[in-house]
Amino acid sequence: MVYVVIVYDMQADRTHLLLNFLRQYLTHVQNSVFEGDVTEGDLETIENHLDSLLEPDESTIIYEVSSEKLLNRSVFGEDPTEDRRFL
Amino acid sequence: MVYVVIVYDMQADRTHLLLNFLRQYLTHVQNSVFEGDVTEGDLETIENHLDSLLEPDESTIIYEVSSEKLLNRSVFGEDPTEDRRFL
Repeated sequence: MVYVVIVYDMQADRTHLLLNFLRQYLTHVQNSVFEGDVTEGDLETIENHLDSLLEPDESTIIYEVSSEKLLNRSVFGEDPTEDRRFL
Repeated sequence: MVYVVIVYDMQADRTHLLLNFLRQYLTHVQNSVFEGDVTEGDLETIENHLDSLLEPDESTIIYEVSSEKLLNRSVFGEDPTEDRRFL
């Protein structure tokens, strides 16, 4: 398993395509941010899907650490994971 | 020094406040994402400023690793750091 943070910048009317896909694997932690543990196989599936889904001017960055323990996470303002929109 | 990725979700008409502030310390890598090396002192300054700046319903997450080497970064679609909007 690896721990990933995925941030995306997509046209507003197309974000549901990525939201619906990434929700199968990860937790939606902020408007355009997902994170969680994935297997190497699932990560490859995600990467292939991103390549096929993204249009010009859209981008996604995957930050990957070998373990969640290496990543310190601090939330300022309202924690969106406590917001039911994201559950 | 620590390496941070900062993602924010702010009201559109207020994002310039955070953009102008974070640009002093970090690289703007995607629409609502900054990253870079900062000193512990600068990180504390950033955290204090976020606490004072954010309004209800707005949030910012700081992901911190002790070294950039621990973080694998992959970009899909157009790399926004190659886009002059972000320079």
